[in-house]
Amino acid sequence: MGHKGIRTALKVDLNKPAWEQPGLHNRWHPDVPSCGKIANNEVVKIECLDWTGGQIKNDDSADDIKNVDLTQIHYLSGPFDIETAEPGDVLLVEIQDVQPFEDQPWGFTGIFDKQNGGGFLDGLYPKPAKAIWDFEGIFCSSRHIPHVRFAGLIHPGILGCAPSAEVLAEWNRREGELIAANTTQRDVAKPPEPKSAHAGSAEENLKEKIGREGARTIPGRPEHGGNCDIKNLSRGSKVYLPVHVPGAKFSVGDLHFSQGDGEISFCGAIEMAGVITIKFTVIKGGMAKLAMKSPIFHPGPVEPQFGPGRYLTFEGFSVDENGKQHYLDATVAYRQTCLRVIEYLRRYGYSDYQIYLLLSCAPVQGHIAGLVDIPNACTTLGVPMDIFDFDIRPETEVTKLDMGSCAFASD
Amino acid sequence: MGHKGIRTALKVDLNKPAWEQPGLHNRWHPDVPSCGKIANNEVVKIECLDWTGGQIKNDDSADDIKNVDLTQIHYLSGPFDIETAEPGDVLLVEIQDVQPFEDQPWGFTGIFDKQNGGGFLDGLYPKPAKAIWDFEGIFCSSRHIPHVRFAGLIHPGILGCAPSAEVLAEWNRREGELIAANTTQRDVAKPPEPKSAHAGSAEENLKEKIGREGARTIPGRPEHGGNCDIKNLSRGSKVYLPVHVPGAKFSVGDLHFSQGDGEISFCGAIEMAGVITIKFTVIKGGMAKLAMKSPIFHPGPVEPQFGPGRYLTFEGFSVDENGKQHYLDATVAYRQTCLRVIEYLRRYGYSDYQIYLLLSCAPVQGHIAGLVDIPNACTTLGVPMDIFDFDIRPETEVTKLDMGSCAFASD
Amino acid sequence: MGHKGIRTALKVDLNKPAWEQPGLHNRWHPDVPSCGKIANNEVVKIECLDWTGGQIKNDDSADDIKNVDLTQIHYLSGPFDIETAEPGDVLLVEIQDVQPFEDQPWGFTGIFDKQNGGGFLDGLYPKPAKAIWDFEGIFCSSRHIPHVRFAGLIHPGILGCAPSAEVLAEWNRREGELIAANTTQRDVAKPPEPKSAHAGSAEENLKEKIGREGARTIPGRPEHGGNCDIKNLSRGSKVYLPVHVPGAKFSVGDLHFSQGDGEISFCGAIEMAGVITIKFTVIKGGMAKLAMKSPIFHPGPVEPQFGPGRYLTFEGFSVDENGKQHYLDATVAYRQTCLRVIEYLRRYGYSDYQIYLLLSCAPVQGHIAGLVDIPNACTTLGVPMDIFDFDIRPETEVTKLDMGSCAFASD
Amino acid sequence: MGHKGIRTALKVDLNKPAWEQPGLHNRWHPDVPSCGKIANNEVVKIECLDWTGGQIKNDDSADDIKNVDLTQIHYLSGPFDIETAEPGDVLLVEIQDVQPFEDQPWGFTGIFDKQNGGGFLDGLYPKPAKAIWDFEGIFCSSRHIPHVRFAGLIHPGILGCAPSAEVLAEWNRREGELIAANTTQRDVAKPPEPKSAHAGSAEENLKEKIGREGARTIPGRPEHGGNCDIKNLSRGSKVYLPVHVPGAKFSVGDLHFSQGDGEISFCGAIEMAGVITIKFTVIKGGMAKLAMKSPIFHPGPVEPQFGPGRYLTFEGFSVDENGKQHYLDATVAYRQTCLRVIEYLRRYGYSDYQIYLLLSCAPVQGHIAGLVDIPNACTTLGVPMDIFDFDIRPETEVTKLDMGSCAFASD
Repeated sequence: MGHKGIRTALKVDLNKPAWEQPGLHNRWHPDVPSCGKIANNEVVKIECLDWTGGQIKNDDSADDIKNVDLTQIHYLSGPFDIETAEPGDVLLVEIQDVQPFEDQPWGFTGIFDKQNGGGFLDGLYPKPAKAIWDFEGIFCSSRHIPHVRFAGLIHPGILGCAPSAEVLAEWNRREGELIAANTTQRDVAKPPEPKSAHAGSAEENLKEKIGREGARTIPGRPEHGGNCDIKNLSRGSKVYLPVHVPGAKFSVGDLHFSQGDGEISFCGAIEMAGVITIKFTVIKGGMAKLAMKSPIFHPGPVEPQFGPGRYLTFEGFSVDENGKQHYLDATVAYRQTCLRVIEYLRRYGYSDYQIYLLLSCAPVQGHIAGLVDIPNACTTLGVPMDIFDFDIRPETEVTKLDMGSCAFASD
Repeated sequence: MGHKGIRTALKVDLNKPAWEQPGLHNRWHPDVPSCGKIANNEVVKIECLDWTGGQIKNDDSADDIKNVDLTQIHYLSGPFDIETAEPGDVLLVEIQDVQPFEDQPWGFTGIFDKQNGGGFLDGLYPKPAKAIWDFEGIFCSSRHIPHVRFAGLIHPGILGCAPSAEVLAEWNRREGELIAANTTQRDVAKPPEPKSAHAGSAEENLKEKIGREGARTIPGRPEHGGNCDIKNLSRGSKVYLPVHVPGAKFSVGDLHFSQGDGEISFCGAIEMAGVITIKFTVIKGGMAKLAMKSPIFHPGPVEPQFGPGRYLTFEGFSVDENGKQHYLDATVAYRQTCLRVIEYLRRYGYSDYQIYLLLSCAPVQGHIAGLVDIPNACTTLGVPMDIFDFDIRPETEVTKLDMGSCAFASD
Repeated sequence: MGHKGIRTALKVDLNKPAWEQPGLHNRWHPDVPSCGKIANNEVVKIECLDWTGGQIKNDDSADDIKNVDLTQIHYLSGPFDIETAEPGDVLLVEIQDVQPFEDQPWGFTGIFDKQNGGGFLDGLYPKPAKAIWDFEGIFCSSRHIPHVRFAGLIHPGILGCAPSAEVLAEWNRREGELIAANTTQRDVAKPPEPKSAHAGSAEENLKEKIGREGARTIPGRPEHGGNCDIKNLSRGSKVYLPVHVPGAKFSVGDLHFSQGDGEISFCGAIEMAGVITIKFTVIKGGMAKLAMKSPIFHPGPVEPQFGPGRYLTFEGFSVDENGKQHYLDATVAYRQTCLRVIEYLRRYGYSDYQIYLLLSCAPVQGHIAGLVDIPNACTTLGVPMDIFDFDIRPETEVTKLDMGSCAFASD
Repeated sequence: MGHKGIRTALKVDLNKPAWEQPGLHNRWHPDVPSCGKIANNEVVKIECLDWTGGQIKNDDSADDIKNVDLTQIHYLSGPFDIETAEPGDVLLVEIQDVQPFEDQPWGFTGIFDKQNGGGFLDGLYPKPAKAIWDFEGIFCSSRHIPHVRFAGLIHPGILGCAPSAEVLAEWNRREGELIAANTTQRDVAKPPEPKSAHAGSAEENLKEKIGREGARTIPGRPEHGGNCDIKNLSRGSKVYLPVHVPGAKFSVGDLHFSQGDGEISFCGAIEMAGVITIKFTVIKGGMAKLAMKSPIFHPGPVEPQFGPGRYLTFEGFSVDENGKQHYLDATVAYRQTCLRVIEYLRRYGYSDYQIYLLLSCAPVQGHIAGLVDIPNACTTLGVPMDIFDFDIRPETEVTKLDMGSCAFASD
């Protein structure tokens, strides 16, 4: 009862390949062997790798981003068996804290190469780029994006319970249909992929099965949450997760020091390795009781608060940059909103790539404003002015500053 | 200097048809005659009709909603000539206050008939419905949605400067192309429509031209703002608007006592007639100076603030209710998020229509969470728990209450 | 039910002496005749004079402040009989709105002459001074204190129910003892004063009695609240007031457009005439049920919010300006804290009197920090940086601006 | 540059007596030897003992509180020489983080025996008592005060630079005068005390001198800050401290996991040992530049935020519990305000001692409301309702709960 430290349910080894660590896995599948037990109402610490499993370095080149192996990502910590959890229950996950490792006080934000991952604005910004962020306590700053500093809204990008076989089959069905119908040049979804599948401590046969059937970790999914990348799922949040298999088989990973709404550059948060402290409580029969199909959460009281009057807010509409009118398309509108911010901040000396990186990871607020006034969806993006050490209000004269450069690839 | 009241730049007559009032108009067109001059740096009051021009009654039937004439809407107050404003300038509009008329302290939220207007969830909720809201100072409550009360985040749904002829032509081109390509059953955009066009004090010939060419007021548009329905454009906000014609020709209307992000039921805000107090300042050459293509705004410090920990937040993904997977579609995801809230709140005794109305008008926060994790867009919707007089937290036992009914149409 | 306007329970006449208006009074006494009835659960509007009853003018001289007649103040609106209220009940007062009169959009802040009223810093600043504030919607600004503008945290300075004869006797006893023991030069309390007593519609005999016995309105008092000058008792607040006489006999007045914690210059809020909208609810047996000896309140969600990081905060201790050490005296500490702000803001070109006025009326936060570390009490004063149109952060270079002058008296 | 961990400038040993550790000291004196150098603009971690130097145990008896040795407290970490700092400069201290030790996740709140320390309400509550708080990430809860849980507003109780000989002499003069004039039974200040003086690495002679002359650490003082116990001096704050000696000689200690305004029970915060991360920057000539006599601070954006409408607020006035009227005495008023909260919360089953402990350490807001309405000062105390797991709003029925007990002494 507090006399000594909180139990660490999983330790990771930052100096060993992720695929050699039995407490990690990178596919969603009901059969991934449990890596440990957690009692109902227990508080534990769980260590996590960064989402690339250590592929990205603290240096000034984006070659590592360019060449990142996207089959070797999202090594999640888990799955954990939560005692008493049964299908139909809800697992209440209270995020008591999230911290980087003390001896690794830095993280990164990346823009993937259009040919290898891409991102929300890759039509305009196809090159890989990177920013390294140094953590100073609750704050971070970057030598690659000067004159900016902010407190992290620290959170896990991914958490969820394992799918049942039925849920997994449904995922594979519907995403398979999308892939089958795809006529574009770009990937629209990721099918199961045996290559680089890591199934924790699974024996070879089981591992093959999981590689063949297991759902990829990239998308969040309505039935369990997963890779939601919700910036407000931060310290103090209570998350309510549907349970689909006995023991819940909870996994977590992809810690973010900070992220903006949308995580637009895809590797857009400030990605880091670290430790998450969680309290687990099983709500028996919770899915029916709460009429729950997708996760619900209740944020804590401790987010960075800038005050409503400290956000400079940009509007965007579903008319794309070629003048084409789209029908109530909030995705197109949000892309335009992001471009409006880039045009505005460019005046201070930042390169477009620097701003693209910044919008991905700073605590910007992306709202759906109006979604019914045909044909235009309208979205807004609020930039907290206090993250800059100069005054970005429209009424203040613009002075171009020396903004240096973010990291680019060598060729 | 404050010795007497602020000048009222336009009075409206609530007992006279909108189309007989020369200070109102319902099309965007550069040639609508100005209804008055406002000095640079002047503060004025402007009276506005509700967006239906008085078609909706304070009663317990939704027949008026069912039969609303959607060609007779959005009678805007204006346009006003702002002294010294020229194309390329930016008009800074400071919203000093917005108030309902003292002797008309009520407003309405409507769900349109799927055959006459529709809305975001009309596939599931095709019937017309209505809630009347009574204003008690800064608060509102409704006999049609009991056990709810909140402070208004009061704002204008529409404000903007007139388009130039070129901008207008561009609107008609691109929206015309969308209409031409439409293969669905539903309207995807509204073309110019001479019927019920009101061009203020225009002579007959000019009025006909404006009816033929004038842009409809339904959508917001990137070049000037217009019907953005941004709930945070409230008291204390500074809005920066592009100027496209000499004198700016500023118009405003469609006042909302409150609105949720998305304004999902289309007639979704708490619509009201009232008075807006604005200060106008011209920023010479502002469009180039601010690199501005679409409006920017800076909210004031006075929004209702519930604290980060008082929002119960729901997640939704771009998988529709038929299990179909959509590709990074934030609009689909937001629809699912809304449905999750309906399923949750239904447990307390509300009908789905009541919740649909409530989500449209209460200050709910709709965020774009993740928009890059193929194929799922993830959006969130935060419901402020303090608007209910009972406890909606998941950990509290549910008691069904007598929630009465919203207003429906007679047949 | 909202179809028409809210009933106005009392109208005041701004062009008639306060003492001729039967709905006003300026003494607390159980026998002041009721000026009207209000039903349980009713919402009404009540008009109020400013606290000087119109003695202060919108001009650039402080002669009116210098010569103010302090026996002719605090003409309260009421008392109102609230149906069903009995001694021992609690009257729940919901402040739905507070507004200035539409045709009188201005208010004033004064520093009284040390010889006529004085104030918190009158040892250092003995001269009378004045600032006129113009209201522009929810904002105010002053020609007497340039480069400052803020949203009002609008509230009534005074509200409360009438004392019973017993409560009144207790007030007179204990304040009389303080006066009797006074050995200083200054008034320490105000005894009953027949001169200029106004007892509403009371007949001459009763009026004399009330003049002789009635408690003065200057101090707030624990048994009923009264002149608390609590800036956060603003729009949206629910106040719980003890009831001491049948019908409660509720009175209200002394409206403030804004005030800082402490209201340090005594006439320190932005004083105004206006209208307050209140809902009244009687809680039977509430005093015992709530174990209530003094009023409790629950603020609404709509205060101006600057964010925790937007307050520049000054520390003060209970060592006075002569180097004398006081024992845990929070009053002395707060005076020092105010002086620290004056020294800091003076660097920008403001006169001490301008800052003294500003600290009295702007929404500054005065906290009791530490009150146990003998011998020093420590208090803090947080100044919201966003009320200035220049940057007051310590890291920004100081530029002296032309700050004009506040109004002073003619000699 | 972030590649590796932040340097720890001082380690403490929790298993060794404080007085044997040369990096600690418990007197303010210019001659305490520096325990290390810190560069201008450097970020370091500094470890700190709890303020009793480990005297209090994690158990269920308050015997340790009863018998605490108050000469053996406030072992501060330091002093540190900050490179380039000279008298007249300002030391900018950015508090980047404060954390408990990972293997000691608990703290304590105490009420001292009236005969040994006492506190703000010791007239009514003379007995020693204690509550142990367990930390679960950013939250804490106590087996001694059930049904309460909140996020810490973590901060150092003490930080400051060393006094010069002149400043120290002034402290001793003015506090000595207070002591000399004392006619009460209680200590009004603490004179220099050779007993248990710890002067870091000082040789015997110097140590004796420091014991003879050195200022006690209990009070905060205007010239340097010191033991201010300001709850908002939390993570993210920038504090501006006057420098009086070459190298500044900065010290810090007395870490608090949380504290309420006033820290009323004297050992009132949640006291803990832990680590603080600070960035130091010297502002040359800062005292003149900022016209600074006492510290100023600028809080960060990350405090727990409950929203203005989530504080139940109590009023108190300067009339004491014996009915005696005091003249504008904010200290008396705040004591009454605290008593009003105790009376209210007692209804739920808490003992008065439990509430007294809770008010000392939970993030309650203590405001100076009105300080000019003779003879009554009015203060308010806002209790954040969300720290309770039951509903404390006045409109909710009271149910008494089993609240157990706080720890008391054995006899």
